[in-house]
Amino acid sequence: MVEIRGIGVSNGIAIAPAYRLVEPDLSFEKIQISDTAAEKERFRAAITSAKGDLEIVRDRATEKFGAEHSAIFEAHLLVLQDPEMSASIEAKIDEGVNAEAALEEISSNFVAIFEAMDNDYMKERASDIRDVSQRILEKLLHVETMDLTTIDTNVIIVAHDLTPSMTAQLNKEFVQGFVTNIGGRTSHSAILARNIQIPAVVGTSTATEQAHKDDLVILDGAKGIVIISPTAEEIAKYEALQLEFEAHQQALRPFVDKESIDAEGHHVELAGNIGRPEDVELVVANGADGVGLFRTEFLYMDRNSFPTEEEQYESYKTVLEKMGDKPTVVRTLDIGGDKELSYLKLPEEMNPFLGYRAIRLCLDDKELFRVQMRALLRASVFGNLKVMFPMIATLDEFREAKAFLLEVKEQLLSEGQAVAEHIEVGMMVEIPSAAVIADLFAKEADFLSIGTNDLIQYTLAADRMNEKVSYLYQPYHPAVLRLIKMVVDAGHANGRWVGMCGEMAGDAVAIPILHAFGLDEFSMSASSILPARAQLAQLSQSALAQHTDSILSLSTAAEVEAYVAENF
Amino acid sequence: MVEIRGIGVSNGIAIAPAYRLVEPDLSFEKIQISDTAAEKERFRAAITSAKGDLEIVRDRATEKFGAEHSAIFEAHLLVLQDPEMSASIEAKIDEGVNAEAALEEISSNFVAIFEAMDNDYMKERASDIRDVSQRILEKLLHVETMDLTTIDTNVIIVAHDLTPSMTAQLNKEFVQGFVTNIGGRTSHSAILARNIQIPAVVGTSTATEQAHKDDLVILDGAKGIVIISPTAEEIAKYEALQLEFEAHQQALRPFVDKESIDAEGHHVELAGNIGRPEDVELVVANGADGVGLFRTEFLYMDRNSFPTEEEQYESYKTVLEKMGDKPTVVRTLDIGGDKELSYLKLPEEMNPFLGYRAIRLCLDDKELFRVQMRALLRASVFGNLKVMFPMIATLDEFREAKAFLLEVKEQLLSEGQAVAEHIEVGMMVEIPSAAVIADLFAKEADFLSIGTNDLIQYTLAADRMNEKVSYLYQPYHPAVLRLIKMVVDAGHANGRWVGMCGEMAGDAVAIPILHAFGLDEFSMSASSILPARAQLAQLSQSALAQHTDSILSLSTAAEVEAYVAENF
Repeated sequence: MVEIRGIGVSNGIAIAPAYRLVEPDLSFEKIQISDTAAEKERFRAAITSAKGDLEIVRDRATEKFGAEHSAIFEAHLLVLQDPEMSASIEAKIDEGVNAEAALEEISSNFVAIFEAMDNDYMKERASDIRDVSQRILEKLLHVETMDLTTIDTNVIIVAHDLTPSMTAQLNKEFVQGFVTNIGGRTSHSAILARNIQIPAVVGTSTATEQAHKDDLVILDGAKGIVIISPTAEEIAKYEALQLEFEAHQQALRPFVDKESIDAEGHHVELAGNIGRPEDVELVVANGADGVGLFRTEFLYMDRNSFPTEEEQYESYKTVLEKMGDKPTVVRTLDIGGDKELSYLKLPEEMNPFLGYRAIRLCLDDKELFRVQMRALLRASVFGNLKVMFPMIATLDEFREAKAFLLEVKEQLLSEGQAVAEHIEVGMMVEIPSAAVIADLFAKEADFLSIGTNDLIQYTLAADRMNEKVSYLYQPYHPAVLRLIKMVVDAGHANGRWVGMCGEMAGDAVAIPILHAFGLDEFSMSASSILPARAQLAQLSQSALAQHTDSILSLSTAAEVEAYVAENF
Repeated sequence: MVEIRGIGVSNGIAIAPAYRLVEPDLSFEKIQISDTAAEKERFRAAITSAKGDLEIVRDRATEKFGAEHSAIFEAHLLVLQDPEMSASIEAKIDEGVNAEAALEEISSNFVAIFEAMDNDYMKERASDIRDVSQRILEKLLHVETMDLTTIDTNVIIVAHDLTPSMTAQLNKEFVQGFVTNIGGRTSHSAILARNIQIPAVVGTSTATEQAHKDDLVILDGAKGIVIISPTAEEIAKYEALQLEFEAHQQALRPFVDKESIDAEGHHVELAGNIGRPEDVELVVANGADGVGLFRTEFLYMDRNSFPTEEEQYESYKTVLEKMGDKPTVVRTLDIGGDKELSYLKLPEEMNPFLGYRAIRLCLDDKELFRVQMRALLRASVFGNLKVMFPMIATLDEFREAKAFLLEVKEQLLSEGQAVAEHIEVGMMVEIPSAAVIADLFAKEADFLSIGTNDLIQYTLAADRMNEKVSYLYQPYHPAVLRLIKMVVDAGHANGRWVGMCGEMAGDAVAIPILHAFGLDEFSMSASSILPARAQLAQLSQSALAQHTDSILSLSTAAEVEAYVAENF
């Protein structure tokens, strides 16, 4: 039995065998072989086996996400069966070269040829060939292929890190939870775990070293505990905790139909954050009052090219229809920083979090932005759309983005397309400059939504992904609280609603403070909505508000936490 | 003639031949040679020539900086004359290998042996061998050695970038100015150029491609203009401008003895920023009221190991004695971010500006910090020392740093060392969180000094070194001005003086605004002091202060600039 600790980022208990997602060792020697016939047989067997896998992956992808998402696997199957490539590799084997070396030599040649072509379609073929060669090589070396979509038994994923694209492939039916070596509460993998409600522990440093294939693993996503090869006693203990957790979840169920009101009847909006259209199911299932943050960058990930206007339109339409009259706040593309797209070349930056990202990139590449604007506006007639711009630092940026949206709207109308008459246009307040002049923004934006994940890291100048300075990532730092209060007051003074869509909005320590400040909307992971609604029902705004001045005069985050513990 | 544009970062006109500081091409082929005697002769000639260079460098370093700074070159001379290494290389040549290949093979072996030893002294020898081999290789390949200390005629340096360590080697006697491909107003090279008062243009993108060795170059450090191979007419024009610039400098000379007062007699402190003890000469020569920022990290650069307590003590003593009764604000070590030390391994960070640096590092490595504290406190008896901590984000950090200083002081006193009785202990306000809770800091810090270079980049979330977002580096952004005003008011409400030691303090557009806000101390490059004093003499604080509310309600940086142009 081994117990390791990490950061619990998504509540719940999971018990299942480990599925290690680690870079396979694909090294091999180039050797001289004598039985070339047997070697060719070995090569063909690898092709057949890889083909079988790919067909499974394609079928699963079609079933789950529709035919347009399985096109890439069709392309891979074509490459795999390309007679010209196989013939060249077999000819190489005939010269006495082993299959691995022959495969590598020939496929690199093909890759080089395709990459040299001045044509995006051909360049994509190079990437297909690389993927397919790797699959064949894995078969030749008898290395297990790591393919999240092929998982078909209950497992706990154990990985160094999960990229947003890997997380997007997780199948909740079988993946019971995950544990990673690195990461923190606001890593995208952590956010997604909460969105799809599976337990997760990150930042364990050594999980991949400690857990072997198929080791039984227990995960406590609240406490950040990971137990590898537990004793029978521990299994029994955690099975009991699992039942208890489920009972607690059950106890919260009645709140799904209740209004989001405090003990005095003051209403606030409790909304959900989503990354993919399918996430909306859980938001609805948890009785959310709306979607407070649709992170549209997930539509751009895990692909080989930009999503078309039509694809985006369908995604937005799906969400808007599901939410009906309830508000759906869609954040425009926030790419850059820690989020990259394989098909979009961004400049190498020394400090990507302080760099070319989100609205900065979109205002610089209007054609990219236009596609999203058109899709959003066309979808607006199917629900209650609100558009929100990320990473606004100056009034000029907000004005330019809003003017562009209106320009695209005019264009659509002149094309005879239907667009909702009134669409609120707001912004994220996640850069200190925006918080400090929130009064000026509130005159021009229809709403303000505080993005605490970034606001905290910029206000404290501490990278939220960097473990060396994680002690400075302080949601309860008095400066953070003061900025939040400034934004709420600035919004209200101008008749605007003010929301929060960072992780802090669902935090039980923060909720009484935010309710005291008068925050109108709290947008959080689906799994936090019912606990928040239950907590809210116990609070009284008028009583809380009397503490506002005292809270704002506290000196440190620790004092704030102590104050909340003592008084609320 | 070619004219290129960059960012003018240090005023003045320079006219001199180009000295290109570019990575030399040291590639070579390993070839078979037949005349091994001639090849050995070629190798020995390279050694002799390298030895001659090294002796010159050593002598210059001794003369300029004292014997302790030339020790490294003595070590290099010893390596160069090591008979064992030469014999091995010549034996290799005897096998028919060319000198370049023989040198590389043998020296890599030696480097590997020394690096494998578990002993810092021996590891340093590995780095010596690497440096010396490069010198010999340059001689073998007839590549000119780039060595800033050997420059002995008037030149303009043309480089891709100048690292802080390269800038520290510049000899003002011969280096008339410099131009680089990258960088911005707050790059360390730019700051140093202003400190030592040589014209500089950065961010030209292509200077190293356009200027060839010895091309005549004209530099206009105010306008950011670089002219390569100018016409006779242009030379005449710029020689006239150079005279005009000098006349203007001359006209400012009388202000050197004047008080720093505005038209109504309100006094402010006009202080100078320094990086090295010798910079204090220019600060004194420009009649500064004090040193407002001593960037001590320069004492740590351009070396192979940490400066000892004794070395630091001497540096601080020199500056304090030169400044006499005038205040000398010493900022404790601000390393990390864009400033690295070859001998201090820092973690690889995704966003170093939001990472492990300055006070974060010093509080984590108290023994490193203790050496500086001891040196500073021991030197305190020689002048008017004020100690300032950089990158303070939380009250906990300030308290811990101040408590440590007091602990070190007690220790020194118990050792019988003399320490000044009263030393002001203050902090930089350069992180938004510190500005927002400046009222809390002002209760505990003796003074606050606003570091605008970092404050602006964090407030706007825009890396000041990144050209893709340089348009967001806005000193006049209304949020920046509001934060400055908050800090000044918070300081005054608690009876503290408030200074500014970022580039903004010497900026002619900002000065009237800052004077309206009531800033007490302006610390700037030595070259800006007299222009600032002349400008101040024209201003009336009571008239300016009437504009404060109007300024603070402006919406954009452009509006602020227009307002200043129109009203002041």
